[in-house]
Amino acid sequence: MYYSRRAKVTSREHAARARPPNVGILAMECYFPKNYLKQTALEEADGCAGKYTVGLGQESLAYFDDREDVASILLSALVRLLESYGITPDQVGRLEVGTETLIDKSKSVKTTLLGTLFGAHADVEGVTSTNACYGGTAALLNSVAWVESSAWDGRYAVVVCGDIAVYEKGPARPTGGGGAVAMLIGPDAPLAIVGPRCTHAVEVYDFYKPRGDTEYAMVDGKLSQAAYLTAVDECWAGLKSKLNAAAGETGLVLPNSSLDGFDYACMHSPYNKLVQKGFARLLYSDLVDEPTRPEWKDDAEAQAWAKVPPAQSVNDRESEKPLKRLSESRWKAMTSAGHTISRSVGNCYTAAVYMNLLSLASGLGEQLEGKRVLMFSYGSGAVATAFVIHARAPTGHNSLSLIGKHATPFTLARLQAAVDVPARLASRAARDVAAFSAAMDLRARRYGACDYEPAGSVDELFPGAYYLTKVDALHRRTYARKPDPLRRASSRKLV
Amino acid sequence: MYYSRRAKVTSREHAARARPPNVGILAMECYFPKNYLKQTALEEADGCAGKYTVGLGQESLAYFDDREDVASILLSALVRLLESYGITPDQVGRLEVGTETLIDKSKSVKTTLLGTLFGAHADVEGVTSTNACYGGTAALLNSVAWVESSAWDGRYAVVVCGDIAVYEKGPARPTGGGGAVAMLIGPDAPLAIVGPRCTHAVEVYDFYKPRGDTEYAMVDGKLSQAAYLTAVDECWAGLKSKLNAAAGETGLVLPNSSLDGFDYACMHSPYNKLVQKGFARLLYSDLVDEPTRPEWKDDAEAQAWAKVPPAQSVNDRESEKPLKRLSESRWKAMTSAGHTISRSVGNCYTAAVYMNLLSLASGLGEQLEGKRVLMFSYGSGAVATAFVIHARAPTGHNSLSLIGKHATPFTLARLQAAVDVPARLASRAARDVAAFSAAMDLRARRYGACDYEPAGSVDELFPGAYYLTKVDALHRRTYARKPDPLRRASSRKLV
Repeated sequence: MYYSRRAKVTSREHAARARPPNVGILAMECYFPKNYLKQTALEEADGCAGKYTVGLGQESLAYFDDREDVASILLSALVRLLESYGITPDQVGRLEVGTETLIDKSKSVKTTLLGTLFGAHADVEGVTSTNACYGGTAALLNSVAWVESSAWDGRYAVVVCGDIAVYEKGPARPTGGGGAVAMLIGPDAPLAIVGPRCTHAVEVYDFYKPRGDTEYAMVDGKLSQAAYLTAVDECWAGLKSKLNAAAGETGLVLPNSSLDGFDYACMHSPYNKLVQKGFARLLYSDLVDEPTRPEWKDDAEAQAWAKVPPAQSVNDRESEKPLKRLSESRWKAMTSAGHTISRSVGNCYTAAVYMNLLSLASGLGEQLEGKRVLMFSYGSGAVATAFVIHARAPTGHNSLSLIGKHATPFTLARLQAAVDVPARLASRAARDVAAFSAAMDLRARRYGACDYEPAGSVDELFPGAYYLTKVDALHRRTYARKPDPLRRASSRKLV
Repeated sequence: MYYSRRAKVTSREHAARARPPNVGILAMECYFPKNYLKQTALEEADGCAGKYTVGLGQESLAYFDDREDVASILLSALVRLLESYGITPDQVGRLEVGTETLIDKSKSVKTTLLGTLFGAHADVEGVTSTNACYGGTAALLNSVAWVESSAWDGRYAVVVCGDIAVYEKGPARPTGGGGAVAMLIGPDAPLAIVGPRCTHAVEVYDFYKPRGDTEYAMVDGKLSQAAYLTAVDECWAGLKSKLNAAAGETGLVLPNSSLDGFDYACMHSPYNKLVQKGFARLLYSDLVDEPTRPEWKDDAEAQAWAKVPPAQSVNDRESEKPLKRLSESRWKAMTSAGHTISRSVGNCYTAAVYMNLLSLASGLGEQLEGKRVLMFSYGSGAVATAFVIHARAPTGHNSLSLIGKHATPFTLARLQAAVDVPARLASRAARDVAAFSAAMDLRARRYGACDYEPAGSVDELFPGAYYLTKVDALHRRTYARKPDPLRRASSRKLV
């Protein structure tokens, strides 16, 4: 027979069944398009100065015409991850996608990524995880569990998430954007996912895409904002409770859980002002938990709100100003380093919170080591999770050996060297409202169409980007890559 | 700081990091509709006697009108799992869905399941996994990894997969069908998922759903058959190689891997004749590996095919008859007990292979203990995995305690008592071709529509089934449940 039976578990078996420690994100890359529109330009066209920059807190938004689709932008992010860090396809045992920009109700974009970059076929698990903006987090947590599971065979997992966020002409259009993030997953990670986490799942029609005739979502803006803030409340209260309960466990030394236990926060970012409201809810929970703290015990307004349960104030606009005031300094200290990309490219849906993490990690590099990051991911419908990332220096070689010797370990310094966010943002091209609107119109006309070659310019793409070359009469899509001699040369140095 | 650093790993830490053993399927339930059509009736209407019964190997097909959608059928399967086995929502920490019958490109059906059966909101992870018929397997493997991971909190995971398979009028229509399977996941399982597995992922447009204006897929029948058979070849060769390589590892005692190492096989079943062709490829691989075995060393035809590499014969119809002859007796012995549901309800896409496993496990009950089941899951596009289920008697209490005492353990005998497949199939209602065609037309008219109440009869549903009550003007769906006093009473006994 196949399986020996043993009544007792020996310590050797325990060791054989032990999960690798500190599984998490080894390396990250991203892709956003070259074309962008300044929100001030959109404000001018819409006659509403300050509404998008101050009101939404956004600087600009990335946009795509019909030359790119979700598969091409995920390919562009994935190829950067492989090249920037010298990863070869045979080192990857799992490739999972998170997206809500579906171009097919059945076929996973994962198969397109695999076919394009991994050759004819491969023993690589993973499909597409879908729940609005939460799909990237589902893919990440699934991949971390795979590395910790008995099925792990020592190869890396790769998570690729991203979306194209577009809205019809009107008040939601400035909250569009788009881009993709690719992440390499393995043990002894510089961004380890550790400790308990808390999920909030609920049935709510706040943002959803039931229509087959349009790329646009059905959105109930007010409901979506309330659902986001409620999810912050529930996930944060639940996570604090679990952190306190786990205080005695091996490897975790915990204070009374509160924002004090974290150095940074990365939250799902539809637009910056909603994130700020969400962040204020974190502090609000701490205020309700500990109203007698010195920092607010003599603040009459704080004391008044400390008596209102968070669930009662989600839709109370009166609460926003005092909570913003109370949380303002921490908001800046804990989140501003993480908002570089999202304020400039707009909503990336599944990739949004990971664009924030990448902004933070690439901006700080090894200065982030030893720090705790509170992660909050939200996907309408709704599923949300708060979890903890411990930024750390790897204790050993966490990269697979190449030709018999260890490759360069994955560290935050290496991530910082690989991804220069400000330089990439600066290399983009600002377009005018007419060009942006024409791109939106072109995308809308192409939705669901077949038997066409995209009209969008390949010249306007970044070097090294993948793009759609054709959708044939049977809706089959083909892709090509814009040459990038520079990146190929520099990536060799990093291996 | 939060995290203590330790240079050395102690045996106690190894124990703390040890995965629970024998994680897999604790319990299963299923749902298929009451209405079905005999394939002989369809043959008569289409004037092609024997084409669907003998040619496809199917007996009948289940069908749905507009009264049921993917959310309602997943709800119907899930509520049966909860009630048949006395599972309460607070015992579930993960709920993951596999489906390719998407009614929304963003919102996961998981949120509808949760909102309907778990109350207002819950700390329950999991979303929807999508890659054609492979989504159920992705959800299952993700859930098994979650139980093995450090994130597991002791609660069960639940996997729900299912689809409504419909084709436009023509040769593919008789390959339709539908239904859903719900599975409870935890350690010390009677259906443990053990040992290595092998995945075959490839870019192929064999079956896909790019169109937003129809429920029907784009299908290249010939390509899909070749892709399925190639996936069998690749996964089986890869799994055998991994089983042989793992022969020395703790807990696994392996012979030279071949079909001899397995007692049963459950394969993805679009229609029975394709499964038989696929099964023949398993034996074909063994023949190529070991041509001198007594069973075929004097068989001239076998010896001729033993010299042809499988990749060369995938599209060679000449190979089908001899491979069928050589594998016929094993085909019957290893698969027929598993085909009770699938031959009678038709293709269930993501649930198909699990309908087969349920047929097998509920049919044999504890007679299955000690047996090995070869699982093969295929999803067009394509991702396929071969993996191993070890059927076993639990060694301890594998059910969560209720009110301070252990609940009834999950065993194959309990599964058999809960799900009487022949009785359920016999309780269905055979309809005529006119009723079937009217249901198909009604579904087609409703696709993408909003602001309507379904016209399909609630009387024609099984007691206890969920059904769609309304799709409002904003495409929001609401559901209700048909009363079932009998099931509620009997389920109490099982707790």
